[in-house]
Amino acid sequence: MMHAAIYSFTHGQALAADLAAAMRLKHELIESHTFPDGESRVRIPSAANTAFIYCPLDRPNEKLAELMFAADAFRRGNTRRLVLVAPYLCYMRQDKSFREGEAVSQQAVARFLSSLFDRILTVDAHLHRVSSIGEVFPEIEAANLPAEEAIAHFALEQGFGKDTVVAGPDEESAQWVGRLAEALGARSVTARKIRRGDREVEISFPVDPDVARKRVLIVDDIVSSGGTMLSALATMRERGAASIHVVVTHALFDEELHRRMQMAGASNVWSTTSVPHPTNAISLAELLAEALRDELKD
Amino acid sequence: MMHAAIYSFTHGQALAADLAAAMRLKHELIESHTFPDGESRVRIPSAANTAFIYCPLDRPNEKLAELMFAADAFRRGNTRRLVLVAPYLCYMRQDKSFREGEAVSQQAVARFLSSLFDRILTVDAHLHRVSSIGEVFPEIEAANLPAEEAIAHFALEQGFGKDTVVAGPDEESAQWVGRLAEALGARSVTARKIRRGDREVEISFPVDPDVARKRVLIVDDIVSSGGTMLSALATMRERGAASIHVVVTHALFDEELHRRMQMAGASNVWSTTSVPHPTNAISLAELLAEALRDELKD
Repeated sequence: MMHAAIYSFTHGQALAADLAAAMRLKHELIESHTFPDGESRVRIPSAANTAFIYCPLDRPNEKLAELMFAADAFRRGNTRRLVLVAPYLCYMRQDKSFREGEAVSQQAVARFLSSLFDRILTVDAHLHRVSSIGEVFPEIEAANLPAEEAIAHFALEQGFGKDTVVAGPDEESAQWVGRLAEALGARSVTARKIRRGDREVEISFPVDPDVARKRVLIVDDIVSSGGTMLSALATMRERGAASIHVVVTHALFDEELHRRMQMAGASNVWSTTSVPHPTNAISLAELLAEALRDELKD
Repeated sequence: MMHAAIYSFTHGQALAADLAAAMRLKHELIESHTFPDGESRVRIPSAANTAFIYCPLDRPNEKLAELMFAADAFRRGNTRRLVLVAPYLCYMRQDKSFREGEAVSQQAVARFLSSLFDRILTVDAHLHRVSSIGEVFPEIEAANLPAEEAIAHFALEQGFGKDTVVAGPDEESAQWVGRLAEALGARSVTARKIRRGDREVEISFPVDPDVARKRVLIVDDIVSSGGTMLSALATMRERGAASIHVVVTHALFDEELHRRMQMAGASNVWSTTSVPHPTNAISLAELLAEALRDELKD
């Protein structure tokens, strides 16, 4: 029996291999076959004593079923410690009943994952009404790693500095927009946001600081339907920014929105590797490896 | 707070309404919205004290996630008793590790559903290596209703009688093929089956009884990829059956296979309402209502 290994489905397998390389562990692929009737058959190639399952949870429902079956297979194989590495963790935004009768999906998913895993590791979980990932997962070990250092390091490499304005599309982002600006020696600006359904959103940036003839770096934790981001791009273009660049932790958007962002003025759109995506530019492998190394001590 | 009600998603809602009518209960629709990023938002319109969720579990993975969220919403609404009515229950065929490292999906799904519901009711669950549904769900109340009486009643109505040969495509079906034949006063014949992958299957019927110039009624519990059924139809046609008819409990096949069955000689293809399907002809509403009536006594 192997001491430890990184496992993944085909989704995100190249990123799982990067993590395995960073940790000097073997990467193994979990088979998932879909029968004509829509049922899945999951098979693991081995069961290490400590098994890390790497699974970015974008478009999550099908993946949750696959994780349930994989966990069953690992426990049968006598895996002692089962760790979910989900650099993007789903359903964190559904953290209350917004209307009567609504499920609190965040808590339902947390109970579900807690029944399968001993530990969960994620990055920039979108926590809003709770202050820590430990409150979401009271029954198992849970850690929420910040991507901000990796993003700041990348932005410095790309030459963003004191001529940059870091822009956040809503109040929630104010804190880490501020910290990224500080790391770059730049100024920052944060919009107020009014949401009108899934795809409609209105935002309003204060006039100060002036972005005219500045390089603007718009940052957000999640971009999916992209309404907020398109509004922010339009505003920055109207105000005469010299160039506009976008960096996000979790890229959940499709190719069409990617093109629309480029047409709206984004010279670059970069994302971390939390979700496998054409915009991936900022590897999280070292961040995750560092947090997981304590698992490898005997 | 209502004493009891039948709930469903849009999938199977007409059948849920039939069950509600049979039980003289209100039928209410559970909302499930899919966000652009693939996450679901589930909302229940009310939370009865005893809530019956009607959910046929064909193409199950997405539905399992929706059930998880619905259960969360009902518990929040103080539903005291939550009953899953799944006339087709998924993953019952994956009841062992067929190859090393394979999940036992039946058990994983049973644990999952047991964490959400107080009771589960299904019809003709495909149990193979376990003898009762109670072994699959040791933690909650579970009942597996036989569709055979409803099927026999329907077959008699259609005029099947002593000139009929009831044919079962594999040994597993022998027992209830025999019982259906007995109810019709007919003879029966059962094939041996050799499976070669998802879609390839070979079957072999004994030569006795002769089916030449007889009405043949092929019965099976589940038809999905349909290889077995097509082989059975071909054999019966070769042997000179006067007409061939198919009746199945769980119709999991698509329109294309339906046409291929007709082209292979099936004059009629009938199914029970366990899965919403164009071939539905045999209502299970009364069978389910009868089994659920004990829930309504105070």
